[in-house]
Amino acid sequence: MTPKAKQAIERADVIVGYATYVKLIESLIKPDAEVISGHMGREVERARTAVTHALENKQVVVISSGDAGVYGMAGVVLEVAAVENAEVPIEIVPGVTAATAAAAKLGAPLVSDFAVISLSDLLTPWNVIEKRLEAAAEADFVIVLYNPQSPGRTEPLARAHEILLRHRSPETPVGIVRLAGRYGEETAVTTLKAMVDAEINMVTTVIVGNSTTYIVDKRIVTPRGYNLFQA
Amino acid sequence: MTPKAKQAIERADVIVGYATYVKLIESLIKPDAEVISGHMGREVERARTAVTHALENKQVVVISSGDAGVYGMAGVVLEVAAVENAEVPIEIVPGVTAATAAAAKLGAPLVSDFAVISLSDLLTPWNVIEKRLEAAAEADFVIVLYNPQSPGRTEPLARAHEILLRHRSPETPVGIVRLAGRYGEETAVTTLKAMVDAEINMVTTVIVGNSTTYIVDKRIVTPRGYNLFQA
Repeated sequence: MTPKAKQAIERADVIVGYATYVKLIESLIKPDAEVISGHMGREVERARTAVTHALENKQVVVISSGDAGVYGMAGVVLEVAAVENAEVPIEIVPGVTAATAAAAKLGAPLVSDFAVISLSDLLTPWNVIEKRLEAAAEADFVIVLYNPQSPGRTEPLARAHEILLRHRSPETPVGIVRLAGRYGEETAVTTLKAMVDAEINMVTTVIVGNSTTYIVDKRIVTPRGYNLFQA
Repeated sequence: MTPKAKQAIERADVIVGYATYVKLIESLIKPDAEVISGHMGREVERARTAVTHALENKQVVVISSGDAGVYGMAGVVLEVAAVENAEVPIEIVPGVTAATAAAAKLGAPLVSDFAVISLSDLLTPWNVIEKRLEAAAEADFVIVLYNPQSPGRTEPLARAHEILLRHRSPETPVGIVRLAGRYGEETAVTTLKAMVDAEINMVTTVIVGNSTTYIVDKRIVTPRGYNLFQA
């Protein structure tokens, strides 16, 4: 979290967020602030609640984990405010997204071009996701998978794994980070072949190397292309 | 910058970094710390200097702008330490990368899958960059361009523009942010057709929307797919 995000939370009259995320920042909330924590999957409702309170001239903060602009609440809040013709000033405060938080723990897998793909097919049709996986795999992007798997949704990751294996060596380094940057964080470095054996759930970020990615002292590095032996 | 990055800088005995970036954090550096600021293009040399000082049991901080793991110094430091068999503990501290800092200023362009591509062909062959542009454009990724253009290197952006226009509507929203998150920041919202008329240089981040990206109250939003009119 940046100091700017922290400050916004500390000053908020109203905090709106998915309960799990609100809990993470509880200690920063003003004692007299109103906390409205909702359920996963109620994003539009939460955005509306936030806009309604902002129209009452309250300082409202909507919480997302990581960066609010990466699969987070930023878009839906702007959209809801526009649909409702609500003239309230809206500021998006960036944060450290799971891709770069996870990358830092794994080494330096994202020092070259990369693609970020969510495997959740709740809001994006699977054929679109599949096309993106194919394209990113073929063009040798490092690939970051968000929302890779949940108890009721294991098929997308299995399909993604097949696609990736068609384009990359089974020995390609893969990094798996659970709860990137949060309490209970766990990191594993494995290979494309073996990644399916790892414990992967909704709080996991998976980073699949490109054809040049290699292991440097147990960490994953995608070389930028420097000549390490230059004078 | 995160509090963790700030703390690391404040505690450092030695600061190594490209002069322009060192200047940005000058006020945080201990008065008795040694500052070694070098030139752009001397990344391997800087990594070696950092490793050498770390071997003398000094706390060394290597500065990158944005996130050190995204086209930054993280990889080369790990690689140089390995090549030199230097057994020094290395920690990568993540930050807010230009993609998400710029996105926040523009609205919410990255709320769907996106690809990050550097147009600098100094270290990556142009044919690889071109293949990635084609793939990302065709698979409808939102596309973030790093290092889009410098005074002596204007061809890559012109070529990228052609490729993008082959796959996307000329009216596709494009966001241009100079000095994202830094002093002197400037933001412009334009279209794919008109983007070449904007002032674009090395400190500029360009975000090209996908086929669903639209303008919401002068800001760029890529919808996540929520039904805004749900009960």
